[in-house]
Amino acid sequence: MKICKTISEVRNTIDLLRKRGKNVGFVPTMGALHEGHAALIRAARKECKVVVVSIFVNPMQFGPTEDFAKYPRPFEADCLLCEREGADVIFAPEGREMCAPGNDTCVVQERLTKVLCGKSRPDHFRGVLTIVLKLFNIIAPDTAYFGQKDAQQVLVIKRMVTDLNLPLKVATIPTSREPDGLAISSRNSYLSLEQRKDAVCLYGALCRARDMVTAGGRDAERIRAEMRRIIRSSRRVRLDYAEIVDAHTLDRIDRITGDVLVAVAVYIRTTRLIDNVCLTIDGKEILC
Amino acid sequence: MKICKTISEVRNTIDLLRKRGKNVGFVPTMGALHEGHAALIRAARKECKVVVVSIFVNPMQFGPTEDFAKYPRPFEADCLLCEREGADVIFAPEGREMCAPGNDTCVVQERLTKVLCGKSRPDHFRGVLTIVLKLFNIIAPDTAYFGQKDAQQVLVIKRMVTDLNLPLKVATIPTSREPDGLAISSRNSYLSLEQRKDAVCLYGALCRARDMVTAGGRDAERIRAEMRRIIRSSRRVRLDYAEIVDAHTLDRIDRITGDVLVAVAVYIRTTRLIDNVCLTIDGKEILC
Repeated sequence: MKICKTISEVRNTIDLLRKRGKNVGFVPTMGALHEGHAALIRAARKECKVVVVSIFVNPMQFGPTEDFAKYPRPFEADCLLCEREGADVIFAPEGREMCAPGNDTCVVQERLTKVLCGKSRPDHFRGVLTIVLKLFNIIAPDTAYFGQKDAQQVLVIKRMVTDLNLPLKVATIPTSREPDGLAISSRNSYLSLEQRKDAVCLYGALCRARDMVTAGGRDAERIRAEMRRIIRSSRRVRLDYAEIVDAHTLDRIDRITGDVLVAVAVYIRTTRLIDNVCLTIDGKEILC
Repeated sequence: MKICKTISEVRNTIDLLRKRGKNVGFVPTMGALHEGHAALIRAARKECKVVVVSIFVNPMQFGPTEDFAKYPRPFEADCLLCEREGADVIFAPEGREMCAPGNDTCVVQERLTKVLCGKSRPDHFRGVLTIVLKLFNIIAPDTAYFGQKDAQQVLVIKRMVTDLNLPLKVATIPTSREPDGLAISSRNSYLSLEQRKDAVCLYGALCRARDMVTAGGRDAERIRAEMRRIIRSSRRVRLDYAEIVDAHTLDRIDRITGDVLVAVAVYIRTTRLIDNVCLTIDGKEILC
């Protein structure tokens, strides 16, 4: 496994590998790798001859009061996980290599980025799209792998790939969960033991929503109210949103008539956690 | 010469040509081709094994009151010019092929797009950048050719290529001029005989500015005032701007201490014309 710190180094490395007619799978990450990332790398390993993992804590996707500075950066453990899962190349650039002084070009979207997490994090998706596009242009993957846990991110990136005619495929991989259902996230490490117990209310709310849809519930507001009730029953959890939206457009809906994204976001003290399930009208879980 | 109307067709065509180890030169145009475009195609022909010309009147770069509808579209004459200059492929997509319903991703810049033409045409460069990036992703050129006449466009596109790590080179080709100095432009065809005579004041103002710089003039405002005087002496010409800015940042300057872009824009009735020269501190013409 090769670790590249510069853009020219990773380009040369991948060019050499690609010359032997190999297809490239790419897993962009912010490091602090866990089982969710491991599942992405395994999916890439299964489908592609070359697997590249990027590790870059993207400053552009953090708001001014968010956790950029304290975001965990356990680089050596990350390398071990990549090695264990069979990655071929790690691209781990410094901040300056990706965000040079004078950089001024951004990728923006209107519709999909104004709702859900985009409402609470106004410049988040602009930062995600810009850096992910840069990474796509550097790595030139055939397939890029993202987790269903960040469902809105997946939709926004798929939209970009379509709109900008990027020559690659986006694959969505199911959310990895702890035994009690909590979605695995690098930010779970911020939680105290007590907070960790409270955090299970996100998955609890989603399961209740899923069960209501499976049982034929079609009134979105009734299901939202039920999710809010479940989340608010955890005293230390502050609700950001509990939403049901069209799974493709992210438009808020009144009645469930097709695929929906059921999504929740909460704060536990300063830790922001998100989770979702994407459902057919019969309550069957799908990927977005 | 092959004419492709769809994205998949032009991709397949270029992929086949590239497989034989050929480098691709790309000349993006809005059609209504003239000697300026011919010079771009010739430059590409000289340097590249495969030359692709795109013809697409980009609706995104026109303002709501601008000349999108009446912009000339002499497709057959354009094809003849491309053939004559030795282009291998024309990519001429319909509007829907490039701007599909639901498209929502845009490329934006702040600094370089707020001044000069960006002031009078607020969404112009967003439209240019977005469509040019799409074309780059479709054609995947090794080198793209742009004219010095649209100097701000060249700088904005070079900025995008750097910022987004696009794997291509941007080449700038000198402005082609009529015998009396008027920069050749598709929009010159809008001018009546009288207006055509007035239009020469743009180049007149630029030459005067160049002469002043060559003679050691360093006071930018004095040179701007002189350009304004020359342009205003043509009764039917309405000044948009006559500017001297830093050639790299496009920042407005008071004193000339390095390379400058001297740029003018006017309206002759509803026809908007632009022109520029990029100068060293000694008044030598350079490309931006």
